[in-house]
Amino acid sequence: MKTRLKHLIHAVEGRFRPDLVLKGGRVLNVFSGEVGRIDVAVWKGFIVGLGDYDADRVIDATSKFILPGFIDSHMHIESSLLIPAEYARAALLHGTTTAVADPHEIANVLGKRGIRYMLEASEGLPFDFYFMLPSCVPASTLDTSGAALSASDLAVFMRHRRVIGLAEVMSYPEVLAAKPDMLAKLELFRGMVIDGHAPGLTGKDLAAYVCAGPSSDHECTSADEAREKLGLGMTVYVREGSAAKNLDALLPAVTPENSRFFCFATDDLFPEDLRMGGINRIIKKAVERGLDPVTAVRMATINPAVRFGLGGKGAIAPGYDADVAVVDNLRDFSVSMVLKKGRVVVKDGKVVVPVRAPRLTYASNTIKTATIRLRDFEVEAETDMVRVIGLIPDQIETEELIMPAPIKGGRICPDIERDILKLAVVERHHKTGNIGIGLVTGFGLKSGCLASSVSHDSHNIIAVGVSDEDIYRAVMEIIKMKGGMVVADRGRVVSRLPLPVAGLMSYNGIEFVVGSLTELEQAARSRGVITEHPFGVLSFLALPVVPKLRLTDKGLVDATTAERKGLFV
Amino acid sequence: MKTRLKHLIHAVEGRFRPDLVLKGGRVLNVFSGEVGRIDVAVWKGFIVGLGDYDADRVIDATSKFILPGFIDSHMHIESSLLIPAEYARAALLHGTTTAVADPHEIANVLGKRGIRYMLEASEGLPFDFYFMLPSCVPASTLDTSGAALSASDLAVFMRHRRVIGLAEVMSYPEVLAAKPDMLAKLELFRGMVIDGHAPGLTGKDLAAYVCAGPSSDHECTSADEAREKLGLGMTVYVREGSAAKNLDALLPAVTPENSRFFCFATDDLFPEDLRMGGINRIIKKAVERGLDPVTAVRMATINPAVRFGLGGKGAIAPGYDADVAVVDNLRDFSVSMVLKKGRVVVKDGKVVVPVRAPRLTYASNTIKTATIRLRDFEVEAETDMVRVIGLIPDQIETEELIMPAPIKGGRICPDIERDILKLAVVERHHKTGNIGIGLVTGFGLKSGCLASSVSHDSHNIIAVGVSDEDIYRAVMEIIKMKGGMVVADRGRVVSRLPLPVAGLMSYNGIEFVVGSLTELEQAARSRGVITEHPFGVLSFLALPVVPKLRLTDKGLVDATTAERKGLFV
Repeated sequence: MKTRLKHLIHAVEGRFRPDLVLKGGRVLNVFSGEVGRIDVAVWKGFIVGLGDYDADRVIDATSKFILPGFIDSHMHIESSLLIPAEYARAALLHGTTTAVADPHEIANVLGKRGIRYMLEASEGLPFDFYFMLPSCVPASTLDTSGAALSASDLAVFMRHRRVIGLAEVMSYPEVLAAKPDMLAKLELFRGMVIDGHAPGLTGKDLAAYVCAGPSSDHECTSADEAREKLGLGMTVYVREGSAAKNLDALLPAVTPENSRFFCFATDDLFPEDLRMGGINRIIKKAVERGLDPVTAVRMATINPAVRFGLGGKGAIAPGYDADVAVVDNLRDFSVSMVLKKGRVVVKDGKVVVPVRAPRLTYASNTIKTATIRLRDFEVEAETDMVRVIGLIPDQIETEELIMPAPIKGGRICPDIERDILKLAVVERHHKTGNIGIGLVTGFGLKSGCLASSVSHDSHNIIAVGVSDEDIYRAVMEIIKMKGGMVVADRGRVVSRLPLPVAGLMSYNGIEFVVGSLTELEQAARSRGVITEHPFGVLSFLALPVVPKLRLTDKGLVDATTAERKGLFV
Repeated sequence: MKTRLKHLIHAVEGRFRPDLVLKGGRVLNVFSGEVGRIDVAVWKGFIVGLGDYDADRVIDATSKFILPGFIDSHMHIESSLLIPAEYARAALLHGTTTAVADPHEIANVLGKRGIRYMLEASEGLPFDFYFMLPSCVPASTLDTSGAALSASDLAVFMRHRRVIGLAEVMSYPEVLAAKPDMLAKLELFRGMVIDGHAPGLTGKDLAAYVCAGPSSDHECTSADEAREKLGLGMTVYVREGSAAKNLDALLPAVTPENSRFFCFATDDLFPEDLRMGGINRIIKKAVERGLDPVTAVRMATINPAVRFGLGGKGAIAPGYDADVAVVDNLRDFSVSMVLKKGRVVVKDGKVVVPVRAPRLTYASNTIKTATIRLRDFEVEAETDMVRVIGLIPDQIETEELIMPAPIKGGRICPDIERDILKLAVVERHHKTGNIGIGLVTGFGLKSGCLASSVSHDSHNIIAVGVSDEDIYRAVMEIIKMKGGMVVADRGRVVSRLPLPVAGLMSYNGIEFVVGSLTELEQAARSRGVITEHPFGVLSFLALPVVPKLRLTDKGLVDATTAERKGLFV
């Protein structure tokens, strides 16, 4: 290491010829907030100089803007349905060079083995995945997860170079109740970064939660909520994901006085959104809405670098990693070139380097269900009023609706007229045979069934359909594929996407996955579905930690009170 | 620890009655940058709530401003001539509750034993001393220090709770030359905080220095210098010390865009200045010069807390340490009350709690000289032109002047008319018998001699006088006192201050030390001395790492080139 440092010093002093010079571009200095025309010299992966330089390889950056590679402050790789290498390949195209990932989904399926998979599968990529360790596996005892992670399980990974903290502490009721297991995790990570997740938490509850350790939040849905959290010292990650978009709501809270405590996060990006852009799209949208471009770039670079203590990241300055996003202008932030550790990795809209990861097989074959029968999905009508999960457009929160029960032949039966569909959650980790049945409105499905093994956070099999037969057929196909997504209709599989890695991720690239997903969504839309990302929406309906009404393999849950609810009122 | 956390959560939730409430004050929120009237509840040393609270002890803070206790980003306790407990007592009065100390001076005298002394002598105080480990002991091989510290010596202390990084890396030539010993220290502290010290360094040299690790600087003397350093990612500590004041020069560089990368530091505060104020005076002066008060307070609170990763410091927010400075207004920042870890430690201008430290004796008895004779101070004239150290008012930098030699009887002799005095540096660590002789102009001394064992960085005995006899008498008195400061005149000791701890610090409190120092300065002034802090100025004249001409026990040195210089030209 001393030799490396010595050579770096010599390189910056100009004793070595740079490998590469970006010439004539305007460089955004995240420290001063200034933008100025200056050459950027790169040597062995590092930025070694700003000034006049020559090199064998000179890249003309005239009329371009040179920004630090973008940092995604909080994201789940699994939401893209891609393995880390394929995610990296897709994100690099849009200038993201570093992401702080929470392998929460795979951990809920595979526990420690899932974390190990993510660490190993993200090794050696031209992209930096840092990991926050999942704090809430299982997210809840209201459903059945594949694994549980205690503080001592997490401790195994703490010294890994790319493990930097404790991921979103979602179980705020456990924090506020000072549950020993939760406190053990918070204590374990004292002095490291602890991310929060506290939608709607306010007042003394919020203050107590912050005291316990979590120092960020990416669940704010109003400017006032962001202001309160920031005022308590939380860094606010403005989330623009596929399922939840908070930029418009939060931007009024960002001021020159407090912008240093804001970052950007994608949280969950579905493949089709990841394909269209990542952090660069959030920056663009923020600037369109009136945010100063320099502030917006800082929220995607130096702010997260400081927040997470990522030395060498987040700035174009000597000694920093040569992670660079070259954009055409500071309006649309379209990325024309990306450097990662000094290598040109993206050029003319294409990834121009190999992005390979070891083929690891130990995260496959994870669907373990009891024998499923058609009649397992039947429910006898008990009363004539039922609880129905109501979807809210563009939010992952749901409503609890009380509606007249859709009954046919003494049994609960979907009512297509009123858009009340049957929802089922089938346990798939321990062969318990648990199946939760509920009702949902807002999908618009008129025929067939959608099913998926991607179903936060326990990733049991979830299915929404117009009949028990359709639901049964779809669920059986998921089991056969060892995980995936499917649209089935009247006994026939219409469209499918296998997700063999933990039932969550494909080995294929983003184009294949988007293609499959487009077909799946097409199949859903042609059957009346009105939500934009039906499999995304579906995937959150079993999540018992986000308000309000949810369905787990054990039945309906009021996430606000963490109480079981009957289907019948 | 889990129990502590559990109780803290319960306290914030309001289950326990706070110990103390500050009522009716206006609280400065360093996160939002806003100031608002709200009560502050304190429990077991922590802030547990902002809102409406009651407690058995209610302190009326109406019309007051409640700020986080101030953090001094870089300072040397030894410059106050006080041991840590006495420094703390003095600094608390002015609202400073935390200081990041570099025990560089005592380490130059006592090496590892000196660092241990500082750590132990600062334990258990109502004040937080964090330590950066001295990086450059000795500061130079151009003089003789008491000790040398290698990377492996420093490694011994790295896991101490209050050791947080590597202190000012002054030997930038060693960094730029990639000297293995220096690189070993920089590598050892990778991932921790490394403070820089690079006066005037610019361009590629500066960039190479920053790449090597140092990420702050407190030696900027112009706004342009600060801008260049900040633009490279350095945090700039605006220093207002006793010997060097840079606020006026640097304030133009502070903008709303970059102020997060600025902190305040006192570096070296002489006792009489410490008595008048500390960080609060810098804030006041900055606000008088036009800096926004909130920004100024942030530079003394959250900015250093973020920089140094001091969790729980730098903000008034639930879960943070109840380190609070209550000030009358945001103009003069006069401190009316101070809380440290929830205890009222300062009230009505008085420290109201005991401030005790263990009496440690292992840092005494450190003056070890060879036999000194009067004729050791004589210098035969070799040519008729000499190099003279020229003082620059309010700067620790000096000029190199070439002047006609003051000669009497074939020997170099002070010339009171031209204010050219004899300067001597007597080695006092290893009985080498080294004595360096030089000339200095700018003191104005007309009679007698000033001598001191406080003489950066090796703390040999330094003396400035109008005759060899006076110098001899003063040096002998220093030896007799086992360190200290003295004014002698025509064979008589006129005034003295013993500094038995490493020859640098007194066991007495600030009032005694200031009284003694006032007498010493009075004695100096009555003998014609024109510099404001003659013992302070004297103490920097042997420092071979700050430009330009210096005198060590081995002779004159050009600090710019690190070369020995002859007295004669």
